[in-house]
Amino acid sequence: MCEANAYLVDKSGHESLFLEAVDKVEPEEEGIRLVSIFGEQKFIKGTIDSLSLVDHKVFIKPE
Amino acid sequence: MCEANAYLVDKSGHESLFLEAVDKVEPEEEGIRLVSIFGEQKFIKGTIDSLSLVDHKVFIKPE
Repeated sequence: MCEANAYLVDKSGHESLFLEAVDKVEPEEEGIRLVSIFGEQKFIKGTIDSLSLVDHKVFIKPE
Repeated sequence: MCEANAYLVDKSGHESLFLEAVDKVEPEEEGIRLVSIFGEQKFIKGTIDSLSLVDHKVFIKPE
């Protein structure tokens, strides 16, 4: 399967794991909703900053 | 390998293939740079709109 782990990246570039095994990331009114392959969902005020898919990484920039 | 195909999504929701086998998507000054697993690169003024990773799809919203 080709899910990826989602990490929050703060202004200093520090990465912290936010949600594992993410399948879908969808825009919502004030941010984005992440849904994992296990059905777990998280919402965050932020945007998708960058991707490194071969390394299974999605980087989110919180507002 | 877990690369994905990048599609542009226009205001009417129409999807058009932009770059196949994308590994990295990185922010740049006025947009984003996409890099495929074959080393092909494309730049576009836009943002990453949504992801459907199990389906190997990245959706880009052009400005």
